[in-house]
Amino acid sequence: MNHIPTNHPRAKSLYIRERLVEAFDAGLIAKEGLMAHGRGEAFDYLIGEKTSKSAKKAILAAAFMLKQARNPVISVNGNIAGLCSKEIVQLAKVSGAKIEVNLFYATKSRRQNIFRVLKKNGAPRIYGMDKKNSTKLSGLDSARRIVDRDGIYSADVVVVPLEDGDRTLALKKAGKKVITFDLNPMSRTAETADITIVDNVVRAIILLIKSCKNPKEIKFDNSKNLALAILEIKANLTRRARNAQIS
Amino acid sequence: MNHIPTNHPRAKSLYIRERLVEAFDAGLIAKEGLMAHGRGEAFDYLIGEKTSKSAKKAILAAAFMLKQARNPVISVNGNIAGLCSKEIVQLAKVSGAKIEVNLFYATKSRRQNIFRVLKKNGAPRIYGMDKKNSTKLSGLDSARRIVDRDGIYSADVVVVPLEDGDRTLALKKAGKKVITFDLNPMSRTAETADITIVDNVVRAIILLIKSCKNPKEIKFDNSKNLALAILEIKANLTRRARNAQIS
Repeated sequence: MNHIPTNHPRAKSLYIRERLVEAFDAGLIAKEGLMAHGRGEAFDYLIGEKTSKSAKKAILAAAFMLKQARNPVISVNGNIAGLCSKEIVQLAKVSGAKIEVNLFYATKSRRQNIFRVLKKNGAPRIYGMDKKNSTKLSGLDSARRIVDRDGIYSADVVVVPLEDGDRTLALKKAGKKVITFDLNPMSRTAETADITIVDNVVRAIILLIKSCKNPKEIKFDNSKNLALAILEIKANLTRRARNAQIS
Repeated sequence: MNHIPTNHPRAKSLYIRERLVEAFDAGLIAKEGLMAHGRGEAFDYLIGEKTSKSAKKAILAAAFMLKQARNPVISVNGNIAGLCSKEIVQLAKVSGAKIEVNLFYATKSRRQNIFRVLKKNGAPRIYGMDKKNSTKLSGLDSARRIVDRDGIYSADVVVVPLEDGDRTLALKKAGKKVITFDLNPMSRTAETADITIVDNVVRAIILLIKSCKNPKEIKFDNSKNLALAILEIKANLTRRARNAQIS
């Protein structure tokens, strides 16, 4: 549908956008997911569309937490399945984490479509598919409260990429450690999680997989790191205000 | 589909989001339009979801330019039709501007759906609907190059809400004055236009209609005003870094 000029200043971002439109057409993503992606694009633009120093630090801390976990689970929604199913499966393998499908705008067909894409990319077992094994997280209204008894419900560490704030809070209240990818360092999710990776998940997940192969303990304070992420955006704004030409 | 809690910190933004989803379902908006809206949401969040000082100034300047114009035209795409058709018609009436449908992702059915919504809201005549009367703007690849001979092609001032950068440049090269609404003060559109209103069009258009009823000449420098808009975002980031809780 769309032809992206190769000399476009933001071609990479436009390719990712196309991948998301394709995933929408394939029934993986909700309309709201397309808008959420747009919000992410804007924040990615503000951080300069590259992995920042603060994000690299959060990735190191996340890898260590994942490798130390007793029962880690990666929560997968439509957007993340559309953008990086292959990498999700790699991350699960390298970190020993389970994969669970967990949707905000839940429909049976979307769940099945996501399941198929994950399977196609080599996921061994996928949680969150069997109603008989589901239970509820308290303090949540949306369909996301329904979790797998052997997945998120019994996890000690949950990776929730592209998350909503209410859910992160509910997971925290249930005593979980939460690792999230969120391009907005001021969001409730970012502020509630134990480790917030302020980066485009498409870039960051590759670095997280690498770090899981060679985990190192580092000193990490999420609030301080988020403050650093905001400073990075402010520095970019100053730079762009001087010389940016971007559409 | 979606129930928005009335106490949600950003309920207004979520209502606008729902309106856009409805417009998508009604065939007015492209998938890419949903993502573009998401980008706008992020920038609106950064400017504090209110009309800033710099935006108010740009609105005053825009009203004066519109009222002085010999042949002003408002360019309408799917998003703007979905968000504020009624206000577009009001603005056209109060400013003496023509309305032209001009789409980036053009399909006949979307064009017809937008036409119907504008008609329903009282638009007298709508340009850009008759192929026989179309011609091309030079320097543009997308479908947006096709304009109405009696509309944008012969306009002296064009209002282009929610615009892409290439097109604003092409309009400038064709000798038009361009007024745009763009929530990103660093975009090419923002930098290329003569007057850039850095505000949510849903809020700003109401103020623009008011100002057109009582136009005043003011001193206005778009570059300086954009620099001010960026400073406003930076100030908001500082404030939010201290106390924001937003999802």
